[in-house]
Amino acid sequence: MEKNIVVIEGDGIGPEVTRQAVKVLNAIADQFGHEFNYQYCLMGADAIDKTGNPLPDETIEACLNSDGILFGAIGHPKYDNDPSAKVRPEQGLLKLRKSLQLFANIRPVTTYSSLQHLSPLKAQQLEGVDFIIFRELTGGIYFGEKELSEDGNRAADNCVYTRTEIERIAHLAFQYARQRRKKLTLVDKANVLETSRLWRKVVQEIASQYAEVKVDFLFVDNAAMQIILNPKQFDVILTENMFGDIISDEASVISGSLGLLPSASIGTGVALFEPIHGSYPQAAGKDIANPLGCILSAAMLLDHFGLAKEAEAVRLGVEWTLVNGFVTKDIDPINFYFTSTIGELVSDFV
Amino acid sequence: MEKNIVVIEGDGIGPEVTRQAVKVLNAIADQFGHEFNYQYCLMGADAIDKTGNPLPDETIEACLNSDGILFGAIGHPKYDNDPSAKVRPEQGLLKLRKSLQLFANIRPVTTYSSLQHLSPLKAQQLEGVDFIIFRELTGGIYFGEKELSEDGNRAADNCVYTRTEIERIAHLAFQYARQRRKKLTLVDKANVLETSRLWRKVVQEIASQYAEVKVDFLFVDNAAMQIILNPKQFDVILTENMFGDIISDEASVISGSLGLLPSASIGTGVALFEPIHGSYPQAAGKDIANPLGCILSAAMLLDHFGLAKEAEAVRLGVEWTLVNGFVTKDIDPINFYFTSTIGELVSDFV
Ligand SMILES: CC(C)[C@H](C(=O)O)[C@@H](O)C(=O)O
Ligand SMILES: CC(C)[C@H](C(=O)O)[C@@H](O)C(=O)O
Repeated sequence: MEKNIVVIEGDGIGPEVTRQAVKVLNAIADQFGHEFNYQYCLMGADAIDKTGNPLPDETIEACLNSDGILFGAIGHPKYDNDPSAKVRPEQGLLKLRKSLQLFANIRPVTTYSSLQHLSPLKAQQLEGVDFIIFRELTGGIYFGEKELSEDGNRAADNCVYTRTEIERIAHLAFQYARQRRKKLTLVDKANVLETSRLWRKVVQEIASQYAEVKVDFLFVDNAAMQIILNPKQFDVILTENMFGDIISDEASVISGSLGLLPSASIGTGVALFEPIHGSYPQAAGKDIANPLGCILSAAMLLDHFGLAKEAEAVRLGVEWTLVNGFVTKDIDPINFYFTSTIGELVSDFV
Repeated sequence: MEKNIVVIEGDGIGPEVTRQAVKVLNAIADQFGHEFNYQYCLMGADAIDKTGNPLPDETIEACLNSDGILFGAIGHPKYDNDPSAKVRPEQGLLKLRKSLQLFANIRPVTTYSSLQHLSPLKAQQLEGVDFIIFRELTGGIYFGEKELSEDGNRAADNCVYTRTEIERIAHLAFQYARQRRKKLTLVDKANVLETSRLWRKVVQEIASQYAEVKVDFLFVDNAAMQIILNPKQFDVILTENMFGDIISDEASVISGSLGLLPSASIGTGVALFEPIHGSYPQAAGKDIANPLGCILSAAMLLDHFGLAKEAEAVRLGVEWTLVNGFVTKDIDPINFYFTSTIGELVSDFV
């Protein structure tokens, strides 16, 4: 099989971790007789430095013509504390999501028994945790009209949703739920927000087409508690963009190993795969970042290509490193291996 | 001292828990020679049932003329799953906040060593946790313009903030921080939202007037992780309305005893005190709800009256019940005492 993959290294530790994921993809290609072609593209602070633009048109173009995108991370502190910066790295990612219509961000939340000791939660909270968050990614307050008054003393962000936007991701989430434990939880704030009430109405309507799936509704404040108090109650969580940003990051701490969590952003065409950890600038260039989140994102990319056996081989390689104590500094601050070593080990295994 | 207190029992377990708090206030009045007069007012589902209006004008009037408000809880499931309900209990609370200009919701997050076993977090996460969340309460997406298209297929909620709204709560939070461990963390989403950038700008400016306070900025998704990973890093957290709703509920699980947490909503005039647990309809009328959140809210009310010794007596009474195992069903599902018994015990103690 021949596939054209766009690699966006991005900012901070992005380049280091994507490099390991590409190493693993190459090992898979060798082992299973595929041909993966890579095209490297710019986005984020890196793109601003080199071109002045957080998302050059060539990147969008290349993505649209590719079979899949592997992405590292975005963001740089020099932009964060300057509220009046006109150009910011994150604009690149948001524009890419919109241009490619990546309307669903999918984040599996699983725990690794070899890493349970790293979780901030007690063991009884962790047993049986296995859920997926579907976060809407191209609507809501991220993309509504923004305003800043002339005198700079009044700001506004509009949150908008249409029935169509809700329906397409809801169907996706229901389809997943049907294949899993048949439970879907909509997280919203329907007691306050008009948009949330639209979400609730549309999901209630669609639910009748998936009679075997049990549907629950949780206010986002309550969800923020339940995710910690009793995470095993969840199977598929569906939510809008801003709430999804918050609760999916919250959920990522359950496993105690943020550095291992992958995500997929999918839409009508090409899909994008990225680790959920951010650009982690303090670690950049030190060969200490955990590449497993990006390597497991590459596994999701392989799944997306229909290469299930290959994806499984990558996951087994990852498990093997963990079980045998080949871990990066985030997992074991004393006896740790370098980013590049972990990449080698997984590549050698597959 | 003579004080006029408005009591709003509200919905679900609201009436039961406020009754215990009033019992304790009466015991304090007896003990310390004060006179507390109570006026009972309607709000929420209860008010809708009785008057058709979630916040009758008499309630606002009475609150404005009182020295302080003790509130139970709001909300009823019969409204939650009906996205097209025109009148909802929560409208009452939101309107009250706005009418009384209760712009700051203050929630202390503390842990009780006698209850550590109930926390979902490991012991090492809990040690030294002691922070306060300042949540803006009368602005943002809660109060911006809402839209629903004629055909019901498009909804919008506008999030608006002005410099003045941010300044008044920021000053309050800085003043608290100065009296405490001198650290203030602004939680926002300045990499995406215009309103968050205004928050960041205003807080940066005000910070120069509080040179001894160290200011940090955290994106809300990161904050949702840090609150679980390392809660002791926080001293004062400042944030906008919607983010505050989510992260303060998230933070409430740290202690493992949601039922014990009080809150104060303050503004330019009269202030309101309420437990942070909701209306918990499944428990209503069973005499099993934990009244300590409401009793500790009454302690905050006493503090607000300048009655520090009296407030301390209430807190000691609460501690005494906990240490001696007099707890409600949420704390010990086997050997538990009734709501009303706990109220008696604290009253007898003070
Ligand atoms: C970098 C930022 C714009 C982004 C978001 O908020 O969507 C990130 O936090 C994420 O979750 O992918
Ligand atoms: C009942 C609801 C409107 C309210 C809110 O969201 O503000 C509640 O969750 C709270 O935190 O006081």
